[in-house]
Amino acid sequence: MGPLDTLDTPCVLVDLDVADANIVRHQAYLTAHGIAARPHIKTHKTVDLARAQMAAGAVGITCQKLGEAEVMADAGFTDILLTYNIVGAPKLARLMALHARIAIAVVADSAAVVDGLAAASRDPARPLTVLVECDTGARRCGVADPGLALALAHRIQAAPGLAFGGLMTYPPNGGTAAVEAFMAEAKALLDAAGLLCPRVTSGGSPDMWRAHEAPVVSEYRAGTYIYNDRSLVERGVCDWADCALTVLATVVSVPAQDRAVIDAGSKVLTTDPMGLTGHGHVLGRPDLAIDRLSEEHGCVQASDGAVRLSVGQRLRIVPNHVCVVSNMVDRVVALRDGAPVGELAIAARGRVT
Amino acid sequence: MGPLDTLDTPCVLVDLDVADANIVRHQAYLTAHGIAARPHIKTHKTVDLARAQMAAGAVGITCQKLGEAEVMADAGFTDILLTYNIVGAPKLARLMALHARIAIAVVADSAAVVDGLAAASRDPARPLTVLVECDTGARRCGVADPGLALALAHRIQAAPGLAFGGLMTYPPNGGTAAVEAFMAEAKALLDAAGLLCPRVTSGGSPDMWRAHEAPVVSEYRAGTYIYNDRSLVERGVCDWADCALTVLATVVSVPAQDRAVIDAGSKVLTTDPMGLTGHGHVLGRPDLAIDRLSEEHGCVQASDGAVRLSVGQRLRIVPNHVCVVSNMVDRVVALRDGAPVGELAIAARGRVT
Repeated sequence: MGPLDTLDTPCVLVDLDVADANIVRHQAYLTAHGIAARPHIKTHKTVDLARAQMAAGAVGITCQKLGEAEVMADAGFTDILLTYNIVGAPKLARLMALHARIAIAVVADSAAVVDGLAAASRDPARPLTVLVECDTGARRCGVADPGLALALAHRIQAAPGLAFGGLMTYPPNGGTAAVEAFMAEAKALLDAAGLLCPRVTSGGSPDMWRAHEAPVVSEYRAGTYIYNDRSLVERGVCDWADCALTVLATVVSVPAQDRAVIDAGSKVLTTDPMGLTGHGHVLGRPDLAIDRLSEEHGCVQASDGAVRLSVGQRLRIVPNHVCVVSNMVDRVVALRDGAPVGELAIAARGRVT
Repeated sequence: MGPLDTLDTPCVLVDLDVADANIVRHQAYLTAHGIAARPHIKTHKTVDLARAQMAAGAVGITCQKLGEAEVMADAGFTDILLTYNIVGAPKLARLMALHARIAIAVVADSAAVVDGLAAASRDPARPLTVLVECDTGARRCGVADPGLALALAHRIQAAPGLAFGGLMTYPPNGGTAAVEAFMAEAKALLDAAGLLCPRVTSGGSPDMWRAHEAPVVSEYRAGTYIYNDRSLVERGVCDWADCALTVLATVVSVPAQDRAVIDAGSKVLTTDPMGLTGHGHVLGRPDLAIDRLSEEHGCVQASDGAVRLSVGQRLRIVPNHVCVVSNMVDRVVALRDGAPVGELAIAARGRVT
């Protein structure tokens, strides 16, 4: 019997030794380059791991939704950047409740969002910090050019209950140079206008080792780096041995020589393709591909046509994208020295608002 | 103010009037053709809706995982078909605990699975019912030909604590004729061998209105039909007005004329493509496409290049695949006459084992 043999499957494993090493390594890199670390908790959604990130030297955490920030504030975190446009009365009320308790900063990329925040936060003695989100090429949210960033910074600064907190971007993969170009130009415009820019924050694990190539960036928000995943290995950012999160699955059917079926489907691995073919990497069996998922089944094929698996056998899988896997389960099994030592609650799972 | 304007977003709405009509319509169709209904609860994972399906005339329910069956047994359901190969000691123990409480039947598609069940269930006075899963073309689980089905039925019947319960399949889309061909041949083999085949159960919403074209089928397991979704509308199985589950989202950014960003991403809509382009249908705006999802953002484009949306505006979206959406949230907002009347707990959400 191996140490994982008694676990029921499918289950999500987090090797804490690997996660700790990932945290320490990237923190050391950022520290060496004078960049503040503000890890994104969306990847793990777990209080204990956010604490480990703070203990390693992070200046605070990043959340993507108010519900995540509420969970983390309840757990004692006092410095949170919420990298999301907060829109609508229910969310603005929740944001102000958080603002009354902790240091929370948000972002905005339009006058409409700033005006909503300004209407909700009116106390000049306790202004809400708002950063301007900039689109440095990812084509998601963000103002499209540095001139618009300046205009929005002015609008924030002009609101009595808001304080301009700097510039924020989530760059496209390979976008470090684009970040530097956009942000340096925007910062120069702010400087020329006499507007203090307290920070420039960028993020993303795909280019996490190139953060220093954009010297304008003062803070970095990586999420996936704590676990790593197949998408990062395939990009050459890390190795399989650096992958802290894996899915343990059992073969439940081998209906043909060329096909096996495992009990991990889209309800665990998710269908997030991340630009990859197949739905995860089977550790120790690079000849296998998980080529089809339904909710509770994963269909496995082999490159040479012979899967060589039997019912009851177990596979350990590195998912394409770990962040979305964390959100599929209420808890994960924590490993030390390769053996289960308990469970971690995914406290912020499913917080979509 | 409309009746949905006070809801925070993203949120999942279930129009109970539409769901009730969907339940009644398909039940009436099956009843008219003498086919028993055993709806699959994986779509809604919700006790109240399973009760509505039973009240409409279902003979029992279908679950895909033991955890779902446990939730439903706890809620008082006493006749459950678990259409999954149960493998491994932890699951066999849980299965036997359920077997002691309710009428539960499972499936098997290999000698290995049958032998595991036979080792766990040894009481001839209370045999566990096991159906043989047949692959009628979906190439997932299931024995590959009718002869193998007969052999496995013999193996089940030979085990003192098991009872052969019939034949089960989950067919490929458009596979009704293939179901009839495989199952009729298998049943003829069973008849010739003197093995009673208590039922032949098929399923799937894509071909739910063609169930009668496979007269060998005595029981039908539809899941998605209670809500319907974009995949079924695109296949011509139903209309948009028959879609009971929708996702309400808010526009949080309009960074360019040709792009808007909504607060529903893969954490609500999921990336399940279902063979479709885009990630859902925006009701009332057929010109819009949700062309990219990240976890908390959906990027919206328009066919003519102009999205004509503003921050704060709300969209109602029919997802590509509803079953996976139910699994992303702890509760849904129930509507009657188009207005919220409460919430339904997704009691079996996240039961992956």
